[in-house]
Amino acid sequence: MGIRVAVAGASGYAGGELLRLLAGHPEFDVVAATAHSQAGTHVTAVHPQLTGLDLTLGATDAAGLSDADLVFLALPHGQSAAVAAHLPATVKIVDLGADFRLRDAEPWRKYYGGEHAGTWTYGLPELPGQRELIKASQRTANTGCYAASITLALAPLIASGLADPADVVVVASSGTSGAGRGAKVNLLASEVMGDLSPYKVGAHQHVPEIKQATGASSLSMTPVLAPMPRGILATVTATAAKPGDPRQALADAYRDEAFVHLLPEGQWPHTAATAGSNSCHLQATIDVDSGRIIVVSALDNLGKGAAGQAVQCANLMFGLPETMGLSVFGVAP
Amino acid sequence: MGIRVAVAGASGYAGGELLRLLAGHPEFDVVAATAHSQAGTHVTAVHPQLTGLDLTLGATDAAGLSDADLVFLALPHGQSAAVAAHLPATVKIVDLGADFRLRDAEPWRKYYGGEHAGTWTYGLPELPGQRELIKASQRTANTGCYAASITLALAPLIASGLADPADVVVVASSGTSGAGRGAKVNLLASEVMGDLSPYKVGAHQHVPEIKQATGASSLSMTPVLAPMPRGILATVTATAAKPGDPRQALADAYRDEAFVHLLPEGQWPHTAATAGSNSCHLQATIDVDSGRIIVVSALDNLGKGAAGQAVQCANLMFGLPETMGLSVFGVAP
Amino acid sequence: MGIRVAVAGASGYAGGELLRLLAGHPEFDVVAATAHSQAGTHVTAVHPQLTGLDLTLGATDAAGLSDADLVFLALPHGQSAAVAAHLPATVKIVDLGADFRLRDAEPWRKYYGGEHAGTWTYGLPELPGQRELIKASQRTANTGCYAASITLALAPLIASGLADPADVVVVASSGTSGAGRGAKVNLLASEVMGDLSPYKVGAHQHVPEIKQATGASSLSMTPVLAPMPRGILATVTATAAKPGDPRQALADAYRDEAFVHLLPEGQWPHTAATAGSNSCHLQATIDVDSGRIIVVSALDNLGKGAAGQAVQCANLMFGLPETMGLSVFGVAP
Amino acid sequence: MGIRVAVAGASGYAGGELLRLLAGHPEFDVVAATAHSQAGTHVTAVHPQLTGLDLTLGATDAAGLSDADLVFLALPHGQSAAVAAHLPATVKIVDLGADFRLRDAEPWRKYYGGEHAGTWTYGLPELPGQRELIKASQRTANTGCYAASITLALAPLIASGLADPADVVVVASSGTSGAGRGAKVNLLASEVMGDLSPYKVGAHQHVPEIKQATGASSLSMTPVLAPMPRGILATVTATAAKPGDPRQALADAYRDEAFVHLLPEGQWPHTAATAGSNSCHLQATIDVDSGRIIVVSALDNLGKGAAGQAVQCANLMFGLPETMGLSVFGVAP
Repeated sequence: MGIRVAVAGASGYAGGELLRLLAGHPEFDVVAATAHSQAGTHVTAVHPQLTGLDLTLGATDAAGLSDADLVFLALPHGQSAAVAAHLPATVKIVDLGADFRLRDAEPWRKYYGGEHAGTWTYGLPELPGQRELIKASQRTANTGCYAASITLALAPLIASGLADPADVVVVASSGTSGAGRGAKVNLLASEVMGDLSPYKVGAHQHVPEIKQATGASSLSMTPVLAPMPRGILATVTATAAKPGDPRQALADAYRDEAFVHLLPEGQWPHTAATAGSNSCHLQATIDVDSGRIIVVSALDNLGKGAAGQAVQCANLMFGLPETMGLSVFGVAP
Repeated sequence: MGIRVAVAGASGYAGGELLRLLAGHPEFDVVAATAHSQAGTHVTAVHPQLTGLDLTLGATDAAGLSDADLVFLALPHGQSAAVAAHLPATVKIVDLGADFRLRDAEPWRKYYGGEHAGTWTYGLPELPGQRELIKASQRTANTGCYAASITLALAPLIASGLADPADVVVVASSGTSGAGRGAKVNLLASEVMGDLSPYKVGAHQHVPEIKQATGASSLSMTPVLAPMPRGILATVTATAAKPGDPRQALADAYRDEAFVHLLPEGQWPHTAATAGSNSCHLQATIDVDSGRIIVVSALDNLGKGAAGQAVQCANLMFGLPETMGLSVFGVAP
Repeated sequence: MGIRVAVAGASGYAGGELLRLLAGHPEFDVVAATAHSQAGTHVTAVHPQLTGLDLTLGATDAAGLSDADLVFLALPHGQSAAVAAHLPATVKIVDLGADFRLRDAEPWRKYYGGEHAGTWTYGLPELPGQRELIKASQRTANTGCYAASITLALAPLIASGLADPADVVVVASSGTSGAGRGAKVNLLASEVMGDLSPYKVGAHQHVPEIKQATGASSLSMTPVLAPMPRGILATVTATAAKPGDPRQALADAYRDEAFVHLLPEGQWPHTAATAGSNSCHLQATIDVDSGRIIVVSALDNLGKGAAGQAVQCANLMFGLPETMGLSVFGVAP
Repeated sequence: MGIRVAVAGASGYAGGELLRLLAGHPEFDVVAATAHSQAGTHVTAVHPQLTGLDLTLGATDAAGLSDADLVFLALPHGQSAAVAAHLPATVKIVDLGADFRLRDAEPWRKYYGGEHAGTWTYGLPELPGQRELIKASQRTANTGCYAASITLALAPLIASGLADPADVVVVASSGTSGAGRGAKVNLLASEVMGDLSPYKVGAHQHVPEIKQATGASSLSMTPVLAPMPRGILATVTATAAKPGDPRQALADAYRDEAFVHLLPEGQWPHTAATAGSNSCHLQATIDVDSGRIIVVSALDNLGKGAAGQAVQCANLMFGLPETMGLSVFGVAP
């Protein structure tokens, strides 16, 4: 028996992807998977893609989770703190929700509402110094999916001084699984197919997280729902603060990374190439008309944007090889 | 018999949409439709959606077109000038290509290459004063599809002094029909479905056209290919040059327009709502974090972005009601 | 003022398509559009594709509908009878639901449950003799969308004696709008995109309607949900009862029809070519291995399968040209 | 160093999927990957989803392949024989093409044209006795993708005597990757999205292969191109030859299989649940109206329908665990 793992919120899309990754992980053994309204249901009735996995969903209470060495929380925003509070301090936790990502309480109240639960180690290993912090942590707050894609594109540009942190403009499009599995009319296939639809324009809750992670001081982010099940494509632009090659800054930052890839010059990231993987693809240029830096980032919102990243963090927390159970390669076409 | 109309380049997507609109137009009668490699083919073999229309494609030469009162040129960029040169001055022409859009030769050479063919009346009736110019024209250069969506969003913001013309950032996603009907691997359904793919990043040929039409002095535009057959969604942001409500500027500009609609506050444009129509939907806000103006624009790249706009211009050129044969309403879902 | 029209159930997809068609109809004027939970809402908040139409949804009660000369009922199955019962006999009605389609009460109870409401004139004008019956009717029961596509393909084959009515096998795939606008997890874009999903296998409620309309005595129908918003593609096969050309039977049946088209030999129907139109495309062959007759039928489930067909019937009921306000041509790509 | 593997035809979709699977396979090491027109190109320029894999495509000649212990041929139909003829007898080969699947020359000439190359062991391990034959083979002919999905559904029904082999009707829809990566207009995203399109109706070249593999004596198969990149959904119906439960026949046939799953009663296969996996999902019922047996089968045309199945066969040919390097679980949504 390897490391005993529980997944809370296993009936959602991130939960399903976690179960898929864990089923192929050599060291993590799923001992419990819980779901609010689906408790008692066989997992394959909820996730037919897991046919062949024999597992029944349980109730999301601390009792069912405390028995584990590692708990993934894939719950709606605002629900993680209550569950985490009842888990023993010895249980390691990776929270895929937003509850523990922010250092400051003020933006939490402004964008999410309610009381700020606290701050855990931010789960983006590719940020400078962050990998060591995660290794030493009992509790890790996984990045948001938009935050992962934008931070990986932007952080090295600001850190290197190439990009002006006071003038960052982002437009990022996401596949529908990022919006969750709730039955809503605007997420129906009839509404989404053949359609691009912006939402939360001018005030998205990931903005403070991205500013905190990148050092940006002013950031406009417009999210768009795109007609595809998975993937985020983020176009990040910033005023150039000094001359320099943005590709070089990215190359320097990610030279030794297994999952973050600067593509060969002239080849631009596209989301399908990252589907099902834990990879993030990057490319950058200088706009010929405006002189702005443009960085484009692609990843799988359920992979490097959620479940894959969570497994990567858990690997670090348990001293396992960081890439264990994760794929660098996308499933395409 | 009404006004005699010919369509050159009828086998492409814009050509097919023109034929569909013209088939329902009370005054325009198609007397010729030409296509390079498909000459001699019945139109329904190329456009099965036109089943019921009895028309055989002819060769694209001046002889087949000169007999018309009105010619639509839906040819690849760079081919319109040669055809137009052989048409009698009495024939009115609407060119859907880029050849005659730019006032200056320099950006033409920079972005398209080769010699600049000249400048015709710019075919965007909703620009101030432009409607009267089109009415008086024998030759009109239809807007590009990206240019239409971005110009309608941006021009009133700059004209009103609200937006800084020196700091405009655009990310615009287009359905695949905008890329034409050429058989290319990157346009295959297997490549496109489930995928978002940026292209010509940092140097798109529509930039000078948009700057010319809007008064922007610096404009970064990133185009993205989206997995849908039709539609453009443009997110246009600009530094606010002075306090003011961007919605008011749009409302003032388009109050009396039949095809350009500022949506009710809080409702954002999405492409599917404009599919098959000649409408453009707009919405605007001020970003809470950066203070930038954000305008989002949606239209059908084959409708208001190409064939619909061309018919609207032609209506004006012949003194017909501007909305004749065009639909305000989209086909959705 | 033309003919006064009301639409009950205007917030659904068929209701929205009805409003779109009626907005362009020269004789029908919408005086009321009702919706259960959306009463009081402006129609463009529910159907953004109708932006430009000034109409507020009302409550679905007889009072709001009785004032009309013509009422379209686009209600969930089982709700039409109650509304119809309260309308004056002088009001003409086209019911898009299933309530009044079946002649026999027994299959109604078996497939739909509850009491059978009665039988109205079946609204498929292209069936032999049916056009005259519709013209003379005050009340018409529109076909189901699957029933329209399958009946148009099959009826002439059985009527001509070419197909054995005792051995019909159908597989028909539908776009998602056919499943309605209810917020259900299985209809979410995340579930549907990239997916084909059969449902109600072995027992679909349209089977008795199709048998009644075609004369088939045994019919296996497997419906499949396809990742597209509109369209039905029906593959209808039957044992050949005698030698003969199935194309000839279709040509004979539909020679004078405006909306039903036998395609040129070798060209097969596909759904996109019919999107937004009231057309049905057909093709047939004899299978080289089995000798079975194969007929393929394509139409728009919201067009010839629902709203378009309803307008076609209404045109007949009011002595108007049958094609008024309807398009033969699809919106493609 | 493990077993040395070469992939011929590595630039296509099946070739790319093979490389993805082989990159994660513990025993197979790719030493060469060849491609006709792309020779000299880095693999990630052709397959960006493989970013992180360092491999340059070579020319498809025997020299580049002979050095391997195992060669996968993923070439267009008709090209495998010429390459295979130049490989040493000691090299094991799995051919993903059709060249060596048929026992009889006559149907080859009828459906494919040209000379019949010969007959290799048929690569469907789940057929009775076939697993042992594959283990003993140097050369294996992988099934076609349609053939895999239909044979797995049908063979046990005929073998058990439940289904009449003389009356089988199949409609099967495939994702676009099944049509290959050639740049053709009918495969463009603009044509395919929102569309269902039948092709080769009445005469598909997989029919003789399916008859040979299942024992069917008469089979009508209608293939349909569906708007999704991967997946085949086959609806297989047959007259019941005797009373009996079709589910029981499937359960008996596949009880011990790792990759072929009879779903729980009432749950129907859908393609997305198998994407990226080597699994095939099955369900069956008796049609209430016609009494026909209906079996529905879903698989990934690039997985169990091509590359996955090829790896499964190769595992057997080398005495490795049959499931090595393959996933039972799909990537969904």
